[in-house]
Amino acid sequence: MIYSIKGFDKTKLKLHETLFHNANGYLGVRSCFEEGYPEGFGTIRGMYVSGVYNIAEMPQAEPLYGFVDKKQAVVNIADAQGIELYIDGERFSPFDGEALEFERALDMEAGVTCRRIHWRSPRGKEAEVLIKRMASFVKPSLFTIEYCVTPLNFSGEIRVISGLNGHVTNHGNPGDPRVASERRRHMDVQDELVIDGVDYVVSATSRSGIKVCVGAGHKTRGLARSGPGFIGIAKPGVALVLEKYVVVVDSRRHKDVLKAAQKEMQALKSELSSHYDAQKAYLADFWERSAMEIEGNGDLNLAMRFNLYQLLQSAPEDSVCGMAAKGLSGEGYEGHCFWDGEMFAFPALLLTQPEIARKMLMFRYNTLNAAIENARFIGHKNGALFPWRTINGTECSGYYPSGAAQYHINGDIGYAVVQYWLVSGDVEFMQNAGLELLLQISRLWLDTGHYHNGRFMINGVTGPDEYTCMVNNNYYTNALAKHNMRWTAKLAETAGLASAAESLGIRGEELKAFRQAAEAMYLPYDKNLGINPQDDSFLQKPVWDFGNTPPSHYPLLLHYHPMHLYRFQVCKQADVVMAHFILEDEQSRETMEKSFLYYEKVTTHDSSLSKPIFCAVAAKLGVMNKATGYFKDSANLDLRDSHGNTSDGIHTANMGGTCMAALFGFAGLRINDEGISLEPRLPPDWQGFTFRIMYRGELREVRITRDGKGCAVNGVKTDGGRVSLRHLSP
Amino acid sequence: MIYSIKGFDKTKLKLHETLFHNANGYLGVRSCFEEGYPEGFGTIRGMYVSGVYNIAEMPQAEPLYGFVDKKQAVVNIADAQGIELYIDGERFSPFDGEALEFERALDMEAGVTCRRIHWRSPRGKEAEVLIKRMASFVKPSLFTIEYCVTPLNFSGEIRVISGLNGHVTNHGNPGDPRVASERRRHMDVQDELVIDGVDYVVSATSRSGIKVCVGAGHKTRGLARSGPGFIGIAKPGVALVLEKYVVVVDSRRHKDVLKAAQKEMQALKSELSSHYDAQKAYLADFWERSAMEIEGNGDLNLAMRFNLYQLLQSAPEDSVCGMAAKGLSGEGYEGHCFWDGEMFAFPALLLTQPEIARKMLMFRYNTLNAAIENARFIGHKNGALFPWRTINGTECSGYYPSGAAQYHINGDIGYAVVQYWLVSGDVEFMQNAGLELLLQISRLWLDTGHYHNGRFMINGVTGPDEYTCMVNNNYYTNALAKHNMRWTAKLAETAGLASAAESLGIRGEELKAFRQAAEAMYLPYDKNLGINPQDDSFLQKPVWDFGNTPPSHYPLLLHYHPMHLYRFQVCKQADVVMAHFILEDEQSRETMEKSFLYYEKVTTHDSSLSKPIFCAVAAKLGVMNKATGYFKDSANLDLRDSHGNTSDGIHTANMGGTCMAALFGFAGLRINDEGISLEPRLPPDWQGFTFRIMYRGELREVRITRDGKGCAVNGVKTDGGRVSLRHLSP
Repeated sequence: MIYSIKGFDKTKLKLHETLFHNANGYLGVRSCFEEGYPEGFGTIRGMYVSGVYNIAEMPQAEPLYGFVDKKQAVVNIADAQGIELYIDGERFSPFDGEALEFERALDMEAGVTCRRIHWRSPRGKEAEVLIKRMASFVKPSLFTIEYCVTPLNFSGEIRVISGLNGHVTNHGNPGDPRVASERRRHMDVQDELVIDGVDYVVSATSRSGIKVCVGAGHKTRGLARSGPGFIGIAKPGVALVLEKYVVVVDSRRHKDVLKAAQKEMQALKSELSSHYDAQKAYLADFWERSAMEIEGNGDLNLAMRFNLYQLLQSAPEDSVCGMAAKGLSGEGYEGHCFWDGEMFAFPALLLTQPEIARKMLMFRYNTLNAAIENARFIGHKNGALFPWRTINGTECSGYYPSGAAQYHINGDIGYAVVQYWLVSGDVEFMQNAGLELLLQISRLWLDTGHYHNGRFMINGVTGPDEYTCMVNNNYYTNALAKHNMRWTAKLAETAGLASAAESLGIRGEELKAFRQAAEAMYLPYDKNLGINPQDDSFLQKPVWDFGNTPPSHYPLLLHYHPMHLYRFQVCKQADVVMAHFILEDEQSRETMEKSFLYYEKVTTHDSSLSKPIFCAVAAKLGVMNKATGYFKDSANLDLRDSHGNTSDGIHTANMGGTCMAALFGFAGLRINDEGISLEPRLPPDWQGFTFRIMYRGELREVRITRDGKGCAVNGVKTDGGRVSLRHLSP
Repeated sequence: MIYSIKGFDKTKLKLHETLFHNANGYLGVRSCFEEGYPEGFGTIRGMYVSGVYNIAEMPQAEPLYGFVDKKQAVVNIADAQGIELYIDGERFSPFDGEALEFERALDMEAGVTCRRIHWRSPRGKEAEVLIKRMASFVKPSLFTIEYCVTPLNFSGEIRVISGLNGHVTNHGNPGDPRVASERRRHMDVQDELVIDGVDYVVSATSRSGIKVCVGAGHKTRGLARSGPGFIGIAKPGVALVLEKYVVVVDSRRHKDVLKAAQKEMQALKSELSSHYDAQKAYLADFWERSAMEIEGNGDLNLAMRFNLYQLLQSAPEDSVCGMAAKGLSGEGYEGHCFWDGEMFAFPALLLTQPEIARKMLMFRYNTLNAAIENARFIGHKNGALFPWRTINGTECSGYYPSGAAQYHINGDIGYAVVQYWLVSGDVEFMQNAGLELLLQISRLWLDTGHYHNGRFMINGVTGPDEYTCMVNNNYYTNALAKHNMRWTAKLAETAGLASAAESLGIRGEELKAFRQAAEAMYLPYDKNLGINPQDDSFLQKPVWDFGNTPPSHYPLLLHYHPMHLYRFQVCKQADVVMAHFILEDEQSRETMEKSFLYYEKVTTHDSSLSKPIFCAVAAKLGVMNKATGYFKDSANLDLRDSHGNTSDGIHTANMGGTCMAALFGFAGLRINDEGISLEPRLPPDWQGFTFRIMYRGELREVRITRDGKGCAVNGVKTDGGRVSLRHLSP
């Protein structure tokens, strides 16, 4: 399936750099023009490597104890995108002359992006320039550019100069707290050399001591090396081709980056077509497992494919780092991983690519010691506190009330561990990592909370909704803490994990304490409204004056002081509604329904994480018109740039959330102790919905079709109720 | 009365720079050695001018909307302290040779500080060096140094070089959030010139555009100008004297600073002795009005004098700026004014020097527009929000949860206005400033709070206790807001102020709204404990684990993350107890007593503002042993450097608080609508307590003596009850 746009739109360059970026979980390359833009056209020209970061100062205005004053930042590595083209002496640029045709495409089956320009030079020479780019899923160090020029109406000299530039900086935007505020040079070139005709640049980050080697080798058709570039003779209709093989390696994964890069450069010996074939085969397998097919709505179907493809591009290739909020598509949020990974991207991947899901959890396990140190540093006597935002496992949030105070990150990781267990049944993972993660997470809950009038309470934390910070008994947090502690106790006594529990030194009293706290967990409930209040004081606050808030004042966070926002009932995103989505057994359907309606009225959806959750819960509750609306907004968020900041990178959480909304919302998928089940409710314009899931090592296709007023799953009528997938075909 | 220390202690140089600083409300000079210290001995060599500041960047780690990223900072102006002395070729320094005698003294009646050294040079020459310094209260631009050298056992050449150095920086301490973190150069020299034998340096701040001219003129006895200094012939027993007249003027008060400085330099024409005389006369009047006499405890008596003297030195000489937390004695808190002025320093000054109190309030009135803008900027639709810390009236707090969120600053200012009115009956002030201040303050309360179940609530603010931030219904804040609104409504309808109310556009409905909100104000009360909870959730939190907190972990703010601290019942300072102190009619004696005992157990007194308030309330409740202990700690805080940071400046709030504790605590002084009354309870070792107060323009002496188990006021027995001062002599 292909996502493409036609026509040359100079106003959306940065947006398209994001939408057409190439990534493979290790390496990300924004889709900048090889030839660059003229001055005055902004670009975020960048190549990024998962887990490769620098340390940057983050001075605190008032540096109180424990405030983080250094952060990690994703670095822009050496730029290997550059290719200059001269057509009979005229430099190619769609900004000059005329782009008679201009098309960009992402082929999600081939795993390549293309840019095709039918160009007329200022002097009237015409040529077709076709550029195909790929970040290899099979060989993650490899990025290729196939640069093909076909003269159309002239003969003469074609000159191509291909660059490798180590002198790069990161980008900045002082006006948006969601991007780094300053342009920074993070990497310095240590060596530039040519070995066997291949260019290499070795750079090192200025403070984190990470080295990156980027190599660029070339193969040509109809072009010959000459001086700093390649020269060929233009003949109308005859294509001249430069193949650029770029390899990237880093010192977090390789001891000697130059040697490793040379080894990876062996890729140059294989035909580009064989790399394309391997990419295609990889994606055939991916789609075989992951494709979701919406019948009857082609646009949505394309959007879903796009979202799934972006998730794959963003999903970490190993466990050196987690999934960043923007994947590898830009510098937004400085390349940090948040809860977006575990709670939004993870579930869809877990159901189809459990090996990726496992890698994501192993990143958390690899940084568990840092989380334990972090908890101790803050003042906790027990447990681990995971960082709200990080690349290497240490905390990077500069404003803790909507950062480090979001203790639910712990709960989210614990929840993901349990979900992984339920879907995979992977005993080995639980023995070696999962149980220990849960144990340290539960210990932190016990240390953070306390009993008050017989109820277990957790004070002074921030839930998912960032317009209400530092509250007592955030429903979402408490419900997750309950879940974490209950499961820790349960799993520690599960056959197969007992010896692991023993070697972790888990004592019976500790499990008893977890169970007691879970049992006694205070989950706020308001009798009058019949809803779960977001926290102890949420309902005591006045409702935000939405009527007198002009549209230009959204998102509110860019127009009101946080302490002012915090005084009102106004939510940036789903909070209680999200808790109801992930922990639906905690409350009655009526409470969920009332809560949904209540919070919907006070939620601005200023966060891209909000609508997918409202969609899923609306679908569950059968409010199909709302569910459908939320879904359309979610599915197209980046494609339509509806938050206005896709230039800075894709919204992986929103994309994952959209998949969750389809699976858990419309298909009504549930996975629990007893197995896997469905309770589908399709939007009116969906004729059918087909997807596959990998459950306990078995791949299974689910096809939901309309059947009268209800649905059928793989031919079995559901009658609007829950059906167990085990009882269905095949 | 003289405070003096003997002996040369090299380890307390910075502390003594503070304790012996000279200031007059306009100008402050730290008591650094004219000759400087050798390398390795830290100094905070500084001269400061009230209201003269620079702008410094204060980058926010995550710059959310409304976060303050620039601050004002007091600037160290050109250094006029420098005097080098050469005794027959040997440079004088008590660090070299031997200080056979060394004494420093502050004469609080003469208004001068002295340093006297009997010095033996490395080569055995002996001389007495006597240095007298004064910041003139009568002529605030003037600071003088009388530098007197008496050779004792030799003849030879005496050379003195007097300096004026514009190339100065501010000081910094990266480890303490209460001081600026970096050394900064705030002023650049614009001009250095000599006019009529007087040196002038004109400097300008780098960003705030404020100019300062410092002039230094000299007169001598036995010394003659020679080259860069002065030379004289030493004869045993014959004193050689250099008189240095330093004048300082600034462009916030003078258009042409050089001209103004030249004019002020006319002071040089008067004998130094006449300046001394004027100083003495000024102080005679001050002590006539302000002296507090504790009979039977000389140490405490001296400490009280010291505190009163420092308050006078710190009290603003005009309304360009308020009283900084450290007065003019150092760079702690960067010269900012907090609530310390209104709530701690103001009351003692109000009762004896009402004209100073008025100036302090006029500073707030002069910055009312900035406070209105601030409120609008944050999101408030009405009212004014005064900055938590400021020099020029705009907010400088970098961490708003324990900064700008302390809305009680508004209430404090409103309270001070009412106190001023009650004591002075100054209709003109109320017409021109006081009522408008109250109006804008009350409007902010109406805008910030809201009705919930019929009660008026104020959410999301921080009370005085900075170990509990961003809470709902802080008792202190709510009680003050009630007071403010009640008084605004009352005063707006008071005869004499009606026309002012009209011209301010106060409407009847508005007054009604103030009264209603005040009436409905929610003041948290816990039935079980019989106390006022500090806020809605204070009592729900677990008590801090004091038993397992080692002494080295105090103050807690330097050892625990704020979000961790906020989760516990632990107070940095008086909060509810302070509310009971200033608004005692709100609660029964029993509630106050129980509250006092409750909060005492969870208060660390990590703030220097805490113990004076606990003292006053203990005295009121008759818990005399506690009151006495708190008082001793309070009265001597700076003299004993018990918070370890007096080097950075005096604690004016603590000093004012100590006076309050004596007056309102031990003397039981009260001022309200009905007049002025006393209910004395003296500590066991006080034989008597005498003080004077200026009430409605009349100065009146109060003498409290022991009379059996009770007390007598001016000879009238109180029988432990309240007596009206109006009914007593004279």
